[in-house]
Amino acid sequence: MLPSPRKTGPSWQSIAEQAQKHRDASLALVQPPLPTITDLALDTSSVPKTVLTAEELSITESDPVTLLSQLSTGTISSKQVAQAFLRRAALAQTLVNCITELLPATALERASYLDTYLQDNGKPIGPLHGLPISVKEHIGMKDLTLNAGFISWHARIGAANAHILDILLEAGAVLYARTTQPQTLMHLETSSNLYGETLNPFNRTLTSGGSSGGEGALVGLRGSCLGIGTDIGGSIRSPAANCGVYGLRPTSHRLPLEGLSATMLGQEHIVPVIGPLSTSLGGVKVFMKTLVDARPWVREPSLLPFAWKTESQLRVFGAGYKGIKIGVLWDDGVVRPHPPVTRALNTVVAKLKSLPGVEVVEWKPYKHDWAWTIISSLYFADGGSEESMAIEASGEPWRPLSEFIIKDNRNVKKGGLTVREVWDWTIKREEYKAEYARLWGDVDVILCPVGPGAAPPLDHARYWGYTSQWNLLDYPSLVFPVSRVDPAIDVVEVGYVPRNDKDKYNYDLYEPNKYVNAPVSLQLVGRRYEDEKVVEVLEYLEEKIGLPFEKFF
Amino acid sequence: MLPSPRKTGPSWQSIAEQAQKHRDASLALVQPPLPTITDLALDTSSVPKTVLTAEELSITESDPVTLLSQLSTGTISSKQVAQAFLRRAALAQTLVNCITELLPATALERASYLDTYLQDNGKPIGPLHGLPISVKEHIGMKDLTLNAGFISWHARIGAANAHILDILLEAGAVLYARTTQPQTLMHLETSSNLYGETLNPFNRTLTSGGSSGGEGALVGLRGSCLGIGTDIGGSIRSPAANCGVYGLRPTSHRLPLEGLSATMLGQEHIVPVIGPLSTSLGGVKVFMKTLVDARPWVREPSLLPFAWKTESQLRVFGAGYKGIKIGVLWDDGVVRPHPPVTRALNTVVAKLKSLPGVEVVEWKPYKHDWAWTIISSLYFADGGSEESMAIEASGEPWRPLSEFIIKDNRNVKKGGLTVREVWDWTIKREEYKAEYARLWGDVDVILCPVGPGAAPPLDHARYWGYTSQWNLLDYPSLVFPVSRVDPAIDVVEVGYVPRNDKDKYNYDLYEPNKYVNAPVSLQLVGRRYEDEKVVEVLEYLEEKIGLPFEKFF
Repeated sequence: MLPSPRKTGPSWQSIAEQAQKHRDASLALVQPPLPTITDLALDTSSVPKTVLTAEELSITESDPVTLLSQLSTGTISSKQVAQAFLRRAALAQTLVNCITELLPATALERASYLDTYLQDNGKPIGPLHGLPISVKEHIGMKDLTLNAGFISWHARIGAANAHILDILLEAGAVLYARTTQPQTLMHLETSSNLYGETLNPFNRTLTSGGSSGGEGALVGLRGSCLGIGTDIGGSIRSPAANCGVYGLRPTSHRLPLEGLSATMLGQEHIVPVIGPLSTSLGGVKVFMKTLVDARPWVREPSLLPFAWKTESQLRVFGAGYKGIKIGVLWDDGVVRPHPPVTRALNTVVAKLKSLPGVEVVEWKPYKHDWAWTIISSLYFADGGSEESMAIEASGEPWRPLSEFIIKDNRNVKKGGLTVREVWDWTIKREEYKAEYARLWGDVDVILCPVGPGAAPPLDHARYWGYTSQWNLLDYPSLVFPVSRVDPAIDVVEVGYVPRNDKDKYNYDLYEPNKYVNAPVSLQLVGRRYEDEKVVEVLEYLEEKIGLPFEKFF
Repeated sequence: MLPSPRKTGPSWQSIAEQAQKHRDASLALVQPPLPTITDLALDTSSVPKTVLTAEELSITESDPVTLLSQLSTGTISSKQVAQAFLRRAALAQTLVNCITELLPATALERASYLDTYLQDNGKPIGPLHGLPISVKEHIGMKDLTLNAGFISWHARIGAANAHILDILLEAGAVLYARTTQPQTLMHLETSSNLYGETLNPFNRTLTSGGSSGGEGALVGLRGSCLGIGTDIGGSIRSPAANCGVYGLRPTSHRLPLEGLSATMLGQEHIVPVIGPLSTSLGGVKVFMKTLVDARPWVREPSLLPFAWKTESQLRVFGAGYKGIKIGVLWDDGVVRPHPPVTRALNTVVAKLKSLPGVEVVEWKPYKHDWAWTIISSLYFADGGSEESMAIEASGEPWRPLSEFIIKDNRNVKKGGLTVREVWDWTIKREEYKAEYARLWGDVDVILCPVGPGAAPPLDHARYWGYTSQWNLLDYPSLVFPVSRVDPAIDVVEVGYVPRNDKDKYNYDLYEPNKYVNAPVSLQLVGRRYEDEKVVEVLEYLEEKIGLPFEKFF
């Protein structure tokens, strides 16, 4: 039984106003203050260099691995680094609306502590000494909000830090920024009635992606070099791809999830995961290794007690080149990717084919439409009643993409599934996973799109298949930037006859000029628990074929 | 909605008769035929030596590791070994009713093939070359029954071998015997309307345990040296303990489950596991290593792709002794173990305390009654409707222990839980797991009872807590034989005041003379995924303190 929408108390609008005031007040504490920016361009990426100091630009545009090296030796101070990222994050908020609050006081205090520690001890406190890390809002922080995108949850406060934050702090991180997420956390965009819409830094008419879209936009604008997102259908990878940065959805049960706020807690049919978005692959790797090395399974028993593998997962030949077999999935057979995505794939594949040791084969999609039926039947097994309750308790309106994924989703059963129906879908899920496993043979990784196009215009991200596919299969999947939409080259495919309604929707969406400047990314996917191999393959390819082909900063 | 009991077709009695005739016909094919045994003693363990040849006795009472060594070099032939175990298994059926069918034709044919292979190739076909393995009936075999203990399922036939059998066959095993299980598979005993009751080889008034009680009795009587059971609440460990053999409940998702027949398929709240019962710890180890080494995760993606660790998991000191910290759980705080169990623990602990490097500490039980509430609320999340349907479809009567665990269990909600209720119990389960994890500190293993007594009289195994506790926590748990009930020493604890109804039931149950001869076993428990450590600790203790203290053959 759903409770009636609240009739008394503050209106949802006044709660939203209060949340935004809190955010703005936290930004106002960042010193020195930023100038007011009046004339916002479509592409915001040129703004930082007009506002920030040379030192701030240099720090914030550094690879996190470089920063860590400088921080650990005292070449730069933690305070300098925190200060630079605080200012750039505040600027990012002005440009693309990606922040729920900044934490200048605690961040600078912690940075000072770390600087003193280094001076006193002559060594860094841990592997992340002094590195600022940004955090999606629904990952709990002690004494801070934990609204997960719902107006009615605005008064929820974190009782303690999430497990993952405890580990990162222990390793030396500085937490300085909290980022936006959509209503329900179940959009591949980021819009909520609390904070409005998060925009794409490279084209403000497009979405930053979601649900970790605050992270995507912030990391995309270099207001963060390493951030934490969560992913149950594409929520790390969509914003990483849309904003031209790296994002990894690790295999389940490797990284700690304790202390997150969300609907459907206790649900295990499709396990959500937590993972990094970063400006470099090195950032992704140091994040994973630090967390796994901390043995999080001791505190959180659902996690698996297996180390982060550091030995090579690939065959290495005498000539020093690696043996890698890559399956290329051009199109999932359901929704055809837009021309810029196919061009990016084409360019990468052409270069791969020239590498010794690398073998490229076609990866035929296997019933990806059925995969979506399974996963979307399991997502809201309670009929979406928790989301409905959380939305309607405050009287806030349903966002279009909440309606789309719950109310208009024919795989969500009104009133919820019975336990036996959940078990039946679970059996189908496992059968599908076994069928898909048989396709691998000796393929090492799959190379594929991250979505059916670059970042779409707001409220149009309605096809999850290119990311949710790997959530269903629980495969590690890594997004990396490749190129940019070029309307002059990436013209509409004339005469294409869509296969189905979803395909038609996506085909009709593509007008090259609307996508100008948008980053184009691709995805590398591995077998379950081959996270290390996926990262290693991308390291090798980046070195050999010079990815990304276009720089965003 | 449950279907009405069937009104037409054969009666359940005639189906049972047919199943037993099929079993008897399969036994009749074993050559040379066994003599008729008329005068069955309470303790059947002296019968084999009056019936079998010296060679058959020698083979069937050998450690499986010794057999494998002899088989791999051709010192004994696969055919000799299969023949010996077929005869002893047929005898075991006569004595304790543990078999659903024998497979003499296929087993001997396969054994001949293996003998030829060894002769032709000069090497064994795999690590289990020629080893006979017995199999619980609900583990599917191609073209054979798959009734899982229900009359109404008697016509179900395996479409293919279960995944685990494919691997064992590939490794050289000979499958020759299929064993009994109880109605619903959810008893810690073994009685069904298809085959009746399986008895304890050492005292026929007691149960063999269950649900893998056919395996327990067969391995206990040395009609098998290595068998496969399944466990969701104690179903490997109860029969292993009751019958004086080794049994391991591995951590979940290590061994293949594909191809099993049971109710509640698709249920993941409490993951069932498959594992070995064996006459030696070496048998347990070779089983685990062979299966994990076969990389079963490639075919069955729910499994974890991690090797069986062969390097020592313990601290080793210069003097060559191992550093092991053992927590001793004497009593779970809910139901006090009977005197023979406490005596076994006392004897082992006294010896442990004299070992250098071994530290013994008390392990205080933490809310084991709450653990039972959680697990028994999650077992039959559909309200037991599948079990009811499967029982009532044929008109067969409910067995007392089926009634006990489903109909009389106040944690089974009529009509089943809602999806949200399942999630709530799942959250409670994870919280409890996290709380329990905090207790470990630097303890390596927990030593504890396997049940609240030795094997009870039939229909009296009503306390699961000493085994289900570790299913809830998903801890690897290994049962090993220690001693035997001695009514002269193991007298009733006079003046004990039971703490609750369950404790009173168990206290009242103990009359020393009724338990005469019954094996007494203990359990070693490790942290999640520390299966290798648990096995290693027991190997070390067996060597150092000479377990078991009494031999059963």
